[in-house]
Amino acid sequence: MQTPWEYRYSYRAQRMGSSVIRELLKLTEQPDIISFAGGLPAPEVFPLKEFREACNAVLDTCGPQALQYGTTEGYLPLREMIARHTTRYGIEVTADNILITSGSQQALDFIGRLFINNGDHILVESPTYLGALQAWNAYGANYVAVPSDEHGMLVDDLETALRAGPKFIYVLPNFQNPTGTTLSLARRHKLVELADKYGVPIVEDDPYGQLRFEGEHLQSVVSLDSLFRGPNGGHYSGNVIYLSTFSKLLAPGLRLAWIVAPPEVIRKIVMAKQAADLHTATFNQYVAFEVGKGGFLDEHVKYIRQVYKERRDVMLETMEEIFPSEVRWTRPEGGMFLWGILPDEMDAANVLKTAIERKVAFVPGAPFHPNGGGKNTMRINFSYSSPENIRVGITRLGYLLKELVAKP
Amino acid sequence: MQTPWEYRYSYRAQRMGSSVIRELLKLTEQPDIISFAGGLPAPEVFPLKEFREACNAVLDTCGPQALQYGTTEGYLPLREMIARHTTRYGIEVTADNILITSGSQQALDFIGRLFINNGDHILVESPTYLGALQAWNAYGANYVAVPSDEHGMLVDDLETALRAGPKFIYVLPNFQNPTGTTLSLARRHKLVELADKYGVPIVEDDPYGQLRFEGEHLQSVVSLDSLFRGPNGGHYSGNVIYLSTFSKLLAPGLRLAWIVAPPEVIRKIVMAKQAADLHTATFNQYVAFEVGKGGFLDEHVKYIRQVYKERRDVMLETMEEIFPSEVRWTRPEGGMFLWGILPDEMDAANVLKTAIERKVAFVPGAPFHPNGGGKNTMRINFSYSSPENIRVGITRLGYLLKELVAKP
Repeated sequence: MQTPWEYRYSYRAQRMGSSVIRELLKLTEQPDIISFAGGLPAPEVFPLKEFREACNAVLDTCGPQALQYGTTEGYLPLREMIARHTTRYGIEVTADNILITSGSQQALDFIGRLFINNGDHILVESPTYLGALQAWNAYGANYVAVPSDEHGMLVDDLETALRAGPKFIYVLPNFQNPTGTTLSLARRHKLVELADKYGVPIVEDDPYGQLRFEGEHLQSVVSLDSLFRGPNGGHYSGNVIYLSTFSKLLAPGLRLAWIVAPPEVIRKIVMAKQAADLHTATFNQYVAFEVGKGGFLDEHVKYIRQVYKERRDVMLETMEEIFPSEVRWTRPEGGMFLWGILPDEMDAANVLKTAIERKVAFVPGAPFHPNGGGKNTMRINFSYSSPENIRVGITRLGYLLKELVAKP
Repeated sequence: MQTPWEYRYSYRAQRMGSSVIRELLKLTEQPDIISFAGGLPAPEVFPLKEFREACNAVLDTCGPQALQYGTTEGYLPLREMIARHTTRYGIEVTADNILITSGSQQALDFIGRLFINNGDHILVESPTYLGALQAWNAYGANYVAVPSDEHGMLVDDLETALRAGPKFIYVLPNFQNPTGTTLSLARRHKLVELADKYGVPIVEDDPYGQLRFEGEHLQSVVSLDSLFRGPNGGHYSGNVIYLSTFSKLLAPGLRLAWIVAPPEVIRKIVMAKQAADLHTATFNQYVAFEVGKGGFLDEHVKYIRQVYKERRDVMLETMEEIFPSEVRWTRPEGGMFLWGILPDEMDAANVLKTAIERKVAFVPGAPFHPNGGGKNTMRINFSYSSPENIRVGITRLGYLLKELVAKP
């Protein structure tokens, strides 16, 4: 349809293109495909009973308030609950440091609105979370990319990157999306130290931190930063903006996440959010508080860890068994993804085309690389499919890779 | 707290200021104040029973899907329901023309993202909806303002304004926020005709159209535009983007609204929404569909109309009785607001300061004027307060105005 709108798009809209990957991924939605492409939690772990009870309790005791417009910052008891949770993990904050967003994607969008001018450079790991790149590309961001290995960002390369004068550092230290790797404690210390040396603040994105199946919990970057800055060790320094979410602990369909930031930044985000969508759905916040207030999520997360660990184990075992030796992959200690690395000359987007014909799918890794490269990489999700489907799908993918690797 | 973030704000964030009005309005949240300042629906009309039944039905029959990530366009059955509803009102559309947003504020934000370059002019009524100005100011919009009277925008002034070359026209034809006035049918025809003459498209914002207490329903601008363009009269022309919401029919705390637009615009909005917040809360969309699918909302809206009509009547009666003759006001046929006009030399912001001391509040009208003026105007909400509180609050305000008008 020809309409007068098409000649009136802003430069932002004109920059939005449809992506080849997006078109390919639409094909993965066919029901007979075993898809490791999405980033979906296992629907089997959603706490339906608790959720139902919470809906009823909220509607019975405070329905009119829960269905009314709410404050832009978010529901105070929920923000207080998150502040207590955050303090328990070593960063003393109050509700004034917390704002509820409609998913972490919205937090990333607000960070773009507030801090990115056209052409600004952001320091990111390479590869990094595609959703952050999408959010910030809309504000004209460029990227200084620091490569990473199986222990996360290569901090030896960090200092050179910091001297480029990035606006801030963006890091996903736990079970990173897309690689599944975890930034080692030594590197976290080094990151905090170097960020301080150059006066560059940090955005720490931590959607998966609670989903650790094995090994020790590592202190968050935000808490290490606060300790480093003493003398009020443990008191939130304000240097790190920390993001987390209920999407992986409770359910993504609620669109509930949060930002931890200095009060002056929270005030700016409030103004941005008033213009963007007024506030996050009130009812959802009441229900999340009702589900979480008695400590249920602490118990529930143990169950999620167990389910995801089994799926990761089945995936790793099947890969060991069937994948050709030319292919390498990460062994995540938690989270939802692992990362496959094909021989240099292979193109994962081509592999995906044939994989879809064989009824198995993943995401090619190139788009996660802000400045190009990574054509031979792939992100594989292990949280969504059943162990049986993981075995079948990885077997299909493994046989395909064997064929492709064997080709001249 | 001094943090490195404060030196890193984008030009957008630096432009955000805290507003005097916003600070004043915070004072109106004290519980002993009768506030006509907000734009809240009456919580008494929220259909708690139906909502509770819908939550349980959704969780019992499709809980895992309702709590999972969803598509960016929105839940298909809900979009189909909205398409049928839209078609019933004379504009033939399909689900491909509909996208679900997190409240209408988000639709306004997306329109800004997609169509407004820094410095572009938007044609608006003066006064107009403050939330649209806030959303579009963030994208650097300027405004060509067309004055209005008790029948809406003065279409005789429209042609001159159109020759300024605005990007689009923004209009709220039904029970406008803030004035409560309705654009007459003759003016709607003229608007469509002139917009066509200059090839300028229209954004029609219609949150209150269903809330008519008296008089005849007037055809929407989008349907008149489609008829005007024939020969497929009634077939959506794509020239008008139409916005509406569940906030006034069901509950604002769900943050559910929708955009009707040409498919090519919908595709661009999908890309904007992916970067902004991925999608609107899945659970809320399932619940709204469950509540609405049997036609319940058609019945429910009759009840809302009855409640709001009583409140408007009590407000108008009390104003007739007590307000000084120097003050004028509109007599809305629906919606949630009326508009007070004080003598030219009076400043409604000053009146508000004293009004708060007397425990009654409203919103000064100046901020609704995109290019200044309107200091002597005020927006008064009649949907939220009980009839008794309306009588008490308007009496307080009336006596205060009598005093102030009597002063030299």
